[in-house]
Amino acid sequence: MNTLTEYLWFETKKQRELVRLTPQVAAVVHKSGIQEGMVLVSAMHITAGVFVNDNEAGLFEDIWQWLEKVAPSNPHYRHHQTGEDNGDAHLKSLLVHHQVVVPISQGKLDLGPWQEIFYAEFDGCRKKRVVLKVMGQ
Amino acid sequence: MNTLTEYLWFETKKQRELVRLTPQVAAVVHKSGIQEGMVLVSAMHITAGVFVNDNEAGLFEDIWQWLEKVAPSNPHYRHHQTGEDNGDAHLKSLLVHHQVVVPISQGKLDLGPWQEIFYAEFDGCRKKRVVLKVMGQ
Amino acid sequence: MNTLTEYLWFETKKQRELVRLTPQVAAVVHKSGIQEGMVLVSAMHITAGVFVNDNEAGLFEDIWQWLEKVAPSNPHYRHHQTGEDNGDAHLKSLLVHHQVVVPISQGKLDLGPWQEIFYAEFDGCRKKRVVLKVMGQ
Repeated sequence: MNTLTEYLWFETKKQRELVRLTPQVAAVVHKSGIQEGMVLVSAMHITAGVFVNDNEAGLFEDIWQWLEKVAPSNPHYRHHQTGEDNGDAHLKSLLVHHQVVVPISQGKLDLGPWQEIFYAEFDGCRKKRVVLKVMGQ
Repeated sequence: MNTLTEYLWFETKKQRELVRLTPQVAAVVHKSGIQEGMVLVSAMHITAGVFVNDNEAGLFEDIWQWLEKVAPSNPHYRHHQTGEDNGDAHLKSLLVHHQVVVPISQGKLDLGPWQEIFYAEFDGCRKKRVVLKVMGQ
Repeated sequence: MNTLTEYLWFETKKQRELVRLTPQVAAVVHKSGIQEGMVLVSAMHITAGVFVNDNEAGLFEDIWQWLEKVAPSNPHYRHHQTGEDNGDAHLKSLLVHHQVVVPISQGKLDLGPWQEIFYAEFDGCRKKRVVLKVMGQ
């Protein structure tokens, strides 16, 4: 069994942003040389998410609108008594989950035809990380 | 370390349907011969989900009603400007997640007494796939 | 490749409770001797969740309030016709997901600075379990 660990750094210009990760994850899997296994793609922050969905700009707007409806910004979160103002970002992270596991088959990401991996920044404009852990043979 | 990869195909008769996968996943794990490890069960589509919950018909109705409340059908999703009509299916997929990892212990799925694996089709009546990646020894 | 499987037992005093698992998961990873790999932390029940977020008491209140808003208690769930009264607990489990995978690097949980692992009990006051499956080398 082999493993490879890499960290992707982000510093988004907007507070909320989606970043398409598929090419970077594919490059790390290629570098690992692993032919059969899995890669874990996991946000290292509690105000960000990682998900797999469609690379379509209209859908991105739908997703942001939906996230804001289900886990809204609100000045009255109790978490804000610590001085933070990002309570909604924590809830959005719980809603979409902070990680995915992508299978690797014949040395490549085994994704469906429309599946792309996204990093979802819910409280950006600062340095944040995603860990990639490739495992297999 | 050994791995086994299999694909399960679905073509549901209804647009929305839950399919119990536990027996098929158990059969693939048995075929792999792996005694200790994990199996990733992951939808290869962006309008479907995979989750673990209870095999109870009343609950299924509750789940569908809840999904429709939290991620409703709506003709006005921006994604529909591409000609699609399944914006809600993308959001439902994000809501329940598109994958689970099931531990394998002593050659068997290490699930709790009431846990069953389900494929959740949110935009069916066409051929779709789930990938199973078994990893272990 | 090595694996280690352990079960954590819970019997919360309240019906709903968050239990911080990070120290117990770290101890199991240490015991495994695995330096590079992953640990799956997965609830074995359909009325509980496992998630990664911040260890902050104000946020806990926000999370509970949010869970109750998005997946509310309701005497009218169809699941209750079986004699159960915990329909909301099933939906809350779907909402936050029942498992996480934590990477292991250099023998330790490779979590971000604020990330902590939580067991979320949605229908407690009885014995329940979380399975830990460590895999790596």
